[in-house]
Amino acid sequence: MPSVSHKGMSMPESPIRKLVPYADAAKKKGVKVYHLNIGQPDIETPKQFWDKLKTLDIKVLEYCPSNGIASYREKFAGYYNRIGIPVNATDFMITEGASEALSFAMMSCLDQDDEIIIPEPMYANYIGFAAAGGIRVTPIPTSIENGFALPPIEDFEKAITLKTKAILICNPNNPTGYLYSKEELLTLRNICLRHDLFLFVDEVYREFLYGGKTFFSALNLDGMDKHVVVFDSISKRFSACGGRIGAIVTRNKEVLAAALKFGQARLSPNSLAQIAGEGLFDLGKDYYDGIIAEYQKRRDVIVKLLNEMPGVSCPNPGGAFYAVASLPVKDSDHFCQWMLENFSHNGATVMMAPASGFYSTTGSGKNQVRIAYVLNTENLTAAAECLDLGLKEYAKAMVRELVN
Amino acid sequence: MPSVSHKGMSMPESPIRKLVPYADAAKKKGVKVYHLNIGQPDIETPKQFWDKLKTLDIKVLEYCPSNGIASYREKFAGYYNRIGIPVNATDFMITEGASEALSFAMMSCLDQDDEIIIPEPMYANYIGFAAAGGIRVTPIPTSIENGFALPPIEDFEKAITLKTKAILICNPNNPTGYLYSKEELLTLRNICLRHDLFLFVDEVYREFLYGGKTFFSALNLDGMDKHVVVFDSISKRFSACGGRIGAIVTRNKEVLAAALKFGQARLSPNSLAQIAGEGLFDLGKDYYDGIIAEYQKRRDVIVKLLNEMPGVSCPNPGGAFYAVASLPVKDSDHFCQWMLENFSHNGATVMMAPASGFYSTTGSGKNQVRIAYVLNTENLTAAAECLDLGLKEYAKAMVRELVN
Repeated sequence: MPSVSHKGMSMPESPIRKLVPYADAAKKKGVKVYHLNIGQPDIETPKQFWDKLKTLDIKVLEYCPSNGIASYREKFAGYYNRIGIPVNATDFMITEGASEALSFAMMSCLDQDDEIIIPEPMYANYIGFAAAGGIRVTPIPTSIENGFALPPIEDFEKAITLKTKAILICNPNNPTGYLYSKEELLTLRNICLRHDLFLFVDEVYREFLYGGKTFFSALNLDGMDKHVVVFDSISKRFSACGGRIGAIVTRNKEVLAAALKFGQARLSPNSLAQIAGEGLFDLGKDYYDGIIAEYQKRRDVIVKLLNEMPGVSCPNPGGAFYAVASLPVKDSDHFCQWMLENFSHNGATVMMAPASGFYSTTGSGKNQVRIAYVLNTENLTAAAECLDLGLKEYAKAMVRELVN
Repeated sequence: MPSVSHKGMSMPESPIRKLVPYADAAKKKGVKVYHLNIGQPDIETPKQFWDKLKTLDIKVLEYCPSNGIASYREKFAGYYNRIGIPVNATDFMITEGASEALSFAMMSCLDQDDEIIIPEPMYANYIGFAAAGGIRVTPIPTSIENGFALPPIEDFEKAITLKTKAILICNPNNPTGYLYSKEELLTLRNICLRHDLFLFVDEVYREFLYGGKTFFSALNLDGMDKHVVVFDSISKRFSACGGRIGAIVTRNKEVLAAALKFGQARLSPNSLAQIAGEGLFDLGKDYYDGIIAEYQKRRDVIVKLLNEMPGVSCPNPGGAFYAVASLPVKDSDHFCQWMLENFSHNGATVMMAPASGFYSTTGSGKNQVRIAYVLNTENLTAAAECLDLGLKEYAKAMVRELVN
């Protein structure tokens, strides 16, 4: 019998999705599951999107150009220019979500066994995309005590080898919610210029900023047009995760040309979500203000409740809608599974993403979880109560296990 | 300045799409372009699809499960069972078109530098997917004189090395339209069992059969449950190319589990086309009969007209909606570009896919083109007239060039 590849065997399971069978089993038993494991917002996809679908007058659902529908790229670029990032529609390649954008950019810029430096904890799927491309991830640890800020420049310098081709950050960060400052981006600029590295920045959460913070795009770094590759998506901005529309944005034409060849091989991104979603870029300040106010309220509720729990610590995120908390447990993989298999309170339990999968360094983050605050404050409060009681019950269960 | 990867540089351009800038330039000059270059049918996407979109009552366009929406997989499996291929919904993984299915299966089953045997000419993007995965393509030549039939078993035996992990065919074939017989599949079965190879079969065109021919699915080969991986798509069957919904279908659970990890990394296929397209699997015999009759008419027209042109030869395809023709030219890449740049008749020209890109062997197929008969017979006839005159004009132009 033929066997699957080593690559197939060594691909990491998604920490965000690997516990899904346990959640499904809990639901089958009638237990309600609060999903804090996945960045699937409950915010409604704007009405404009659904309205557009109702008025389509199309006969054939055709392939679109491999780099996306021209008018869609124009609209996307228009939104960038309005928020102060001067780019052209020709700087965009539309992809199946930011996921495909990251895959294509990695393969376009890094060869087998080349290295990409990523501060950890990192978005788990970066590890997956790198593994699929045979690319090595060099993690640089950040610490929960320091709120997951950018590590000192020396840590980067030490990690750089002849094989290093790029640095990747997510800003604001998934999973930590950390918002990188302009100063931190200037530091990265210096490193990339000195060592001739690409600077990959995942900016899909750039609108999600709290406490009056401001965002600085890597595309606005001076003298970095050839180095900076930005990833974007409509998933979170317009609560349209299932649309799978993202983009590579870069002024480096060689990178776009290489990415386009990967894009041609898969023919085109899906047309429908582009056609229906084009108008979303016209949404104004009111739309964003409303959503950001809602997420800020949620952040304030969940971070406060988490830090009130005995033995729990959670830095206050500056952006995105995630937080990484350390819990009084030895193995959050085990705890998260236990919550789904063995615990409920008022007929409900909580699903979280064990943080170990967000670390490329084996053994790191074992007592941490990522929490996506994508539920309304009422549900978040109920989920927090559930988690608090679950932690206490789990501690007792662990003691019982030791005794027996 | 950082440079793109060797992989990015060596990725092949799509022969189907690389001439697009020349077609765009022709259109800008007011020249009508008959697109015979791409398998984009002009058949209408069934009304049920558009109607469903108009009645959606959804608030949030959510991610779906990484292996696709459960009810969609059920419908897909139901259609398989009705056409005599016994599979379960759990044998399916929904992907972004057959393109992603092929990528995931290749990476799940083959490692860097492993080899996959593919009869050539082959669907050009197989070469691209293999290149992206660092996988080597071992081509086995088929000949236009022999109608592109499966080469003798000895050719396969000679090509197999310790690195060979899979054989891939497309049935009916893109680009040749060749329909593999049950006997040919049994031959492949024997080879795969003897050498422990995966048998990958792209069956996206399985309904498109002409002249009363019948189709034999690799999933119906005895004793091959662990070896056979089939690729499917709604693109051609339902004329919904822009929906980007495909599938891996296999009874090998290890392959599905590995593919699912690649799928988890990209979170999910797009939800919208699954939601809108679920009902299409209920379409009955009338729908298929109508489409097949239309394509058969087109095949009969274009193949006859091609073979009537001086120096042109085109085997009669048994299925799909492609034909490979040899032309009285030295370099069809040059000829196809010339047709877009320098020729028009009645204000129109023809775009074809140069066949060189469908060969993995450099220098092969230089005088061949792939023609997709995706236009109605009136347009096909006009396109053929245009090609006929273009060939004559091109011959004169080449002579003039030699003289000057």
